[in-house]
Amino acid sequence: MIMGILMKVEFDDITISTRSRTEVVDITSRVEGTVTRSAIKNGLCLVHTVHTTAAIAVNENEPNLKADIVRKIREDFPAGAGWAHDRIDDNTDAHIASTYIGPTRIFPIRGGRIVKGTWQSIFLLELDGPRNRQVVVEIMGE
Amino acid sequence: MIMGILMKVEFDDITISTRSRTEVVDITSRVEGTVTRSAIKNGLCLVHTVHTTAAIAVNENEPNLKADIVRKIREDFPAGAGWAHDRIDDNTDAHIASTYIGPTRIFPIRGGRIVKGTWQSIFLLELDGPRNRQVVVEIMGE
Amino acid sequence: MIMGILMKVEFDDITISTRSRTEVVDITSRVEGTVTRSAIKNGLCLVHTVHTTAAIAVNENEPNLKADIVRKIREDFPAGAGWAHDRIDDNTDAHIASTYIGPTRIFPIRGGRIVKGTWQSIFLLELDGPRNRQVVVEIMGE
Repeated sequence: MIMGILMKVEFDDITISTRSRTEVVDITSRVEGTVTRSAIKNGLCLVHTVHTTAAIAVNENEPNLKADIVRKIREDFPAGAGWAHDRIDDNTDAHIASTYIGPTRIFPIRGGRIVKGTWQSIFLLELDGPRNRQVVVEIMGE
Repeated sequence: MIMGILMKVEFDDITISTRSRTEVVDITSRVEGTVTRSAIKNGLCLVHTVHTTAAIAVNENEPNLKADIVRKIREDFPAGAGWAHDRIDDNTDAHIASTYIGPTRIFPIRGGRIVKGTWQSIFLLELDGPRNRQVVVEIMGE
Repeated sequence: MIMGILMKVEFDDITISTRSRTEVVDITSRVEGTVTRSAIKNGLCLVHTVHTTAAIAVNENEPNLKADIVRKIREDFPAGAGWAHDRIDDNTDAHIASTYIGPTRIFPIRGGRIVKGTWQSIFLLELDGPRNRQVVVEIMGE
């Protein structure tokens, strides 16, 4: 007799073309599309960017708030503040913001849907754009 | 012959009533109760809040330290600092702190217990309270 | 008929001896060794430290950048800034940095390898060294 439920793992690759140096890009609908197509009912959804000058974050998609997030990142991680790495590549501020915030967010999947609140959107944070960015979405569950 | 082990996924919903605008609430025992009841031996435990003005964090439950964390969050994410989103809702500071720290923490489960150090407690960080807050605990494993 | 794939969970314990109060230690090759030995093809890799004055982060292993990360952490989380917890233990700055950045990072495993970009290395961030630190690596998948 088999107790428990068998697992499935699915991947999706998303490419995003950003337009500014610092930008908040909503990728919620693309992640949700991957979850729906996977037909996985209960499990996890990993949203992971493979870059060291970008990050993944979760918050409300309200235009003023997105502008405030950009302002705050620029204030907290100032460009050209005498960074040693700037002698190699002029983007140390972006590396440090990515180190703090992180390249990954993870969500439960329950009843075939991502568990998130009404106001939770999934963002790619561009910290050294404009660039083409890769995000890997992994769905794992039953 | 079946190689490997079958998976189980369990959910628990926790409601927390916070009492201050900025507050550190220890939810460790409630998360550990969910892990024990799940009877899952090896796997993962996801602790996820569905709000954009709260966060989940991990640190030591020492009263002075909790006061220091509250002080530092208020200093780092000042309320009313000319935020554009404040014209809509007076809590931009809370949204930005949640964006940085994140709504989720994840732990290994090994031998039926959460893998965490002696001093690691699991906190709901209230950033715009007092409010009722929802936390979803997901246990996935064998 | 069995639909789907059976799961395996593997653990590895890594000990790191740090040498400075604030230090960026690259643990990528040790984590990758665990993934290779697990023979898990598709799944997740959790990298989790069990301490409240250390963190796990992901960024580029470039010596100047690592020095910049140390400088920024010291600037953002200043030691001895009148913290209440310092009366008990002189490391409140380290606790708060760990609270913000977090003790865990998680990666997809795809085709037997960690999904990460060319420049993404996995760091233990020592925030109150020198000390011996424990990192638990968990691999879960098919």
